[in-house]
Amino acid sequence: MVIFALIGAGSVGRVHAASVAGHPKAQLGPVFDIQPHKAAALVGQFGGHVVSSLDDALGDDAHALIIASSTASHGQVAQACVAAGKPFLCEKPLAFDVTTALKIVEAAEAAGLTTAMALNRRLDYQYAGIKAAVDRGEIGRLESMLFTSRSAGLPTVEFVSTSGGLLGEKGSHFYDLACWISGEYPLEVHAMGSTLINPGFAVVGEVDTAMITLRMPSGLLCQFDFSWRAAYGHDERLEVHGALGMLRTEQDIVAPYTHFSDVGFAREGRLAGWFDRFAPTYEIELDLLIQALETGEPTQLPTLADCLAAQRIADAARQSIVEGRRISLEA
Amino acid sequence: MVIFALIGAGSVGRVHAASVAGHPKAQLGPVFDIQPHKAAALVGQFGGHVVSSLDDALGDDAHALIIASSTASHGQVAQACVAAGKPFLCEKPLAFDVTTALKIVEAAEAAGLTTAMALNRRLDYQYAGIKAAVDRGEIGRLESMLFTSRSAGLPTVEFVSTSGGLLGEKGSHFYDLACWISGEYPLEVHAMGSTLINPGFAVVGEVDTAMITLRMPSGLLCQFDFSWRAAYGHDERLEVHGALGMLRTEQDIVAPYTHFSDVGFAREGRLAGWFDRFAPTYEIELDLLIQALETGEPTQLPTLADCLAAQRIADAARQSIVEGRRISLEA
Amino acid sequence: MVIFALIGAGSVGRVHAASVAGHPKAQLGPVFDIQPHKAAALVGQFGGHVVSSLDDALGDDAHALIIASSTASHGQVAQACVAAGKPFLCEKPLAFDVTTALKIVEAAEAAGLTTAMALNRRLDYQYAGIKAAVDRGEIGRLESMLFTSRSAGLPTVEFVSTSGGLLGEKGSHFYDLACWISGEYPLEVHAMGSTLINPGFAVVGEVDTAMITLRMPSGLLCQFDFSWRAAYGHDERLEVHGALGMLRTEQDIVAPYTHFSDVGFAREGRLAGWFDRFAPTYEIELDLLIQALETGEPTQLPTLADCLAAQRIADAARQSIVEGRRISLEA
Amino acid sequence: MVIFALIGAGSVGRVHAASVAGHPKAQLGPVFDIQPHKAAALVGQFGGHVVSSLDDALGDDAHALIIASSTASHGQVAQACVAAGKPFLCEKPLAFDVTTALKIVEAAEAAGLTTAMALNRRLDYQYAGIKAAVDRGEIGRLESMLFTSRSAGLPTVEFVSTSGGLLGEKGSHFYDLACWISGEYPLEVHAMGSTLINPGFAVVGEVDTAMITLRMPSGLLCQFDFSWRAAYGHDERLEVHGALGMLRTEQDIVAPYTHFSDVGFAREGRLAGWFDRFAPTYEIELDLLIQALETGEPTQLPTLADCLAAQRIADAARQSIVEGRRISLEA
Repeated sequence: MVIFALIGAGSVGRVHAASVAGHPKAQLGPVFDIQPHKAAALVGQFGGHVVSSLDDALGDDAHALIIASSTASHGQVAQACVAAGKPFLCEKPLAFDVTTALKIVEAAEAAGLTTAMALNRRLDYQYAGIKAAVDRGEIGRLESMLFTSRSAGLPTVEFVSTSGGLLGEKGSHFYDLACWISGEYPLEVHAMGSTLINPGFAVVGEVDTAMITLRMPSGLLCQFDFSWRAAYGHDERLEVHGALGMLRTEQDIVAPYTHFSDVGFAREGRLAGWFDRFAPTYEIELDLLIQALETGEPTQLPTLADCLAAQRIADAARQSIVEGRRISLEA
Repeated sequence: MVIFALIGAGSVGRVHAASVAGHPKAQLGPVFDIQPHKAAALVGQFGGHVVSSLDDALGDDAHALIIASSTASHGQVAQACVAAGKPFLCEKPLAFDVTTALKIVEAAEAAGLTTAMALNRRLDYQYAGIKAAVDRGEIGRLESMLFTSRSAGLPTVEFVSTSGGLLGEKGSHFYDLACWISGEYPLEVHAMGSTLINPGFAVVGEVDTAMITLRMPSGLLCQFDFSWRAAYGHDERLEVHGALGMLRTEQDIVAPYTHFSDVGFAREGRLAGWFDRFAPTYEIELDLLIQALETGEPTQLPTLADCLAAQRIADAARQSIVEGRRISLEA
Repeated sequence: MVIFALIGAGSVGRVHAASVAGHPKAQLGPVFDIQPHKAAALVGQFGGHVVSSLDDALGDDAHALIIASSTASHGQVAQACVAAGKPFLCEKPLAFDVTTALKIVEAAEAAGLTTAMALNRRLDYQYAGIKAAVDRGEIGRLESMLFTSRSAGLPTVEFVSTSGGLLGEKGSHFYDLACWISGEYPLEVHAMGSTLINPGFAVVGEVDTAMITLRMPSGLLCQFDFSWRAAYGHDERLEVHGALGMLRTEQDIVAPYTHFSDVGFAREGRLAGWFDRFAPTYEIELDLLIQALETGEPTQLPTLADCLAAQRIADAARQSIVEGRRISLEA
Repeated sequence: MVIFALIGAGSVGRVHAASVAGHPKAQLGPVFDIQPHKAAALVGQFGGHVVSSLDDALGDDAHALIIASSTASHGQVAQACVAAGKPFLCEKPLAFDVTTALKIVEAAEAAGLTTAMALNRRLDYQYAGIKAAVDRGEIGRLESMLFTSRSAGLPTVEFVSTSGGLLGEKGSHFYDLACWISGEYPLEVHAMGSTLINPGFAVVGEVDTAMITLRMPSGLLCQFDFSWRAAYGHDERLEVHGALGMLRTEQDIVAPYTHFSDVGFAREGRLAGWFDRFAPTYEIELDLLIQALETGEPTQLPTLADCLAAQRIADAARQSIVEGRRISLEA
């Protein structure tokens, strides 16, 4: 039985807590949140016990930590884990500051700790299916990849200004997928962005609509269409083109029926929501982590370095928008 | 160059005339219609010359006849062709009276004439594709076939009462497809019908909505869903189930775009119309006929006997509705 | 808190136990199975306590029973519930013998008991959506309904011979839907069936492939395409035609991507499984039952009489196959 | 009856000739091609008469010219038309050299000539439908547009090096659509391109895979995914996102059936070919031109200036690739 400490009892913390409570080999131990009533509510539902500091959470009874606290705190918590020799799974990013993040990566590696980043889209059956098909050579040499990610619900100005925003918080998932599926890392990045939905985003220097392009060393071009708005539900798609054809994920429309009438064909409904779509990935993620902790073998989960690599692309995309030019990622 | 005489200058006659005019090896000769102005109009557009009797049309300059006159006249024209030793392509049915039809079949066969029935759905890429896949064994032993045919435009009472109606005029195409695809002929037939659209159909003993079931000797069951109404366009589909899976034709939706909104997904448009769907089959039909006429080899087109076999099923379906019982087709 | 006794700890019993365990207002009490180790295993997972007889299960601490025992035992258990004045939810059928079933219906009604039959497809979002759209008049007067139900996994000979088989066990769900959606009850029934998959079914008088047709008093025709085999996953669909158009449910394809290549378009995957498709209906069912128990108001769930009505159609379909003729359901 | 002179008897010339021959108000007059046998073959099929020089084609009997000669010759022919006071329809581009093109635009305008550019995608039912829906405000303020155009057949090195290539010959259609649908003209352009299919393209300075991004004054972002390769057929799509939702064109799959099996769902076939898809636009184009010629009112067809505007975007995209930076289109 693996005992997990949980740092952060917000919405994503609750998702992790539910996974732990539902896993036959896991249980919840210490739970810390800077708002103790949130920790208490979570413990009431999923088990474990409330602790009053990060240090308490790092105590002996926890085998590993799940870092689901506010984005700005990730780096500090991760450093404490490394110092305490505790394995951890961390929500992205590892740290906003790339230098800090790099230090953590190196320290965790030097300590031989089992660590992982919650880039959980890699575990989704659609993205994993595409990756496997690309690796089997089903479409030959890759030529273009097109990602769409348009969110169903507009986030708050506070969220976008503290989370990494459209280019970082949302974008990191997809830059990571592009690198993982292609096995390449971009040479250059270009981004254009607009603030069309909430003018408040512009005040904090954020865009709500963006198009980013990457060029990989092989010549593969990757395109990202991002928005914080989709009236018809969470719209997330990928198409990958190669010499032999295309692989494309399809949208899950949730509608009871199609209505055929003299004015056409209509389905009243929505695209499947973000959480319905990705809930299974949290369980797979926990299971892979437990396997690594039990066997001592390297985890198959995305690494701290993977997340840092995606973050560097996000930073370049942001720089491209600010400076109005293409950014090189070559050393 | 094959010279065709055309009997009947109505809508289907015009379709044949256009095929002849467009075929590099064919041209239109004598054209006869009991309404001479219709023949004249057709000749004005597609060539040929108007004649004032069937006998004139059977004269020397025509190599073959296309029989597209009123349904009730088919038998008489076909008999005249056989008597004159002229090859012909006949719109269905050959004759309403099965005994008459059988005599024509036998006489044409005895005379060694090239003849064919215009059961042109066999030539459609969807039905032909299904037939080929079934013959290749792609779904193994057949278990069920389900035909849908729902017309976009309601015919007149006069048309349904003189043409064979829902069970005959429409049905024959699909009974023929069922027999052709499966290579079997039904042992028994059951039909239920209702008059829900136009009460005038009931007055002439016709239904406008019907469900027919056939059982083939192998145990294969075939189902037919027929209606003279489909608000959303000509709805014609087939699914064939076998031990290894299903083959299904898909609907051609003609709509410029899908509109994704907060109330759902809508396409303003229609299903592709009957003629748009089957126009190519008239050209294939003529081409196969010309090949047979040129080579003297048997045509690959549906035979007079095929049409008679379908007509016997239609008659049994009609009898099933009238008598309220399942009808045996065994001798 | 409503305490449920559970009779039967097989697969469907476990589904009900999971619903009870997951409902905030319900808990499991006595659990009885003629194989005590099954009851014990279920209790170990979902709570409650094992009892050694039906009488014990009817004891004071249970507020209501869920009857999920073998099909043949339903009638006896339901009678015991009525005698004990216990509300119950019963898996279908209420009793194979219509006379017995009718007595239970009348006795339960006389006693004013809250009772319901687990015809849970009515609670599915697709069927419920169609019903609501029909009731809103979206397609006008109904003309035809076509049901498809083809199972992904072949049942055993024992199951089909004791459960009611293709025409009863499977069919009852769909006859009930046809009556519920249309608000009508059929005048006559015709069925054709074949044994094409497992010859062993024929030995026990069962078919594995069937086509059933009903005619409703309004002239509405209903068609049912049933099979115990679908290589590509659980295939269940409904299309309803009316004067103004068609409502059709769509298939949920579970496949990670579409592969576009020079030989065409392929999706490796399956149709969504039966349980994935209908799991939510068990939770809705329990919730509606608890509402009725708490308020004392009539349940919105299908009644014992609904199930009996469907059973009479199933019996007529069976008779139609045996006797080779259309069967009247008029008194 | 409008008599058209045709300059150029290659493949697109033949398409125009067929439209003229099929239009009830049009007929073919002088036909000129620098390869006289091509002109003769075309005249043999569609009528008209061969002339031996452009000057002859500009003679009195032609009311208007269709310029379908080699791309490099367009400017010279158009200038001759203006000089002769002849209305014309010109395949794009008007002239590779923007200064020359601008002079022709101004001269034609000064002369009050009826002229039009063959940007025929605007006449396609999908693009025209999207434009009309955007104008009706169906998706509110525009936020993003995504164009896909991937060709089914690889062009020759000679064609791409003389036609304007991926960014110009292909791209102009889509830049024009973006401007037309949005009613805006871009402020800046960024393009990335690779040569992944035919290394010979690189030799002549052409890419075969490209991603272009435009920013419109309103903040609307437009993305173009271009390739000279699509193994599965001509892949051309548009999605337009606005505040209220998305409009998306769908792909026309030409396949006889879907095969459902235990390994998934497959359709053997292709996407509808380029010509099948756009053939109707040539007839609409000719018809609109004839209307303008007959009424003397301004044509609704794309103007010379529209084409020049698209060409300027193409030139900026090319410059962006060469210089590796974002290009401003502001004066």
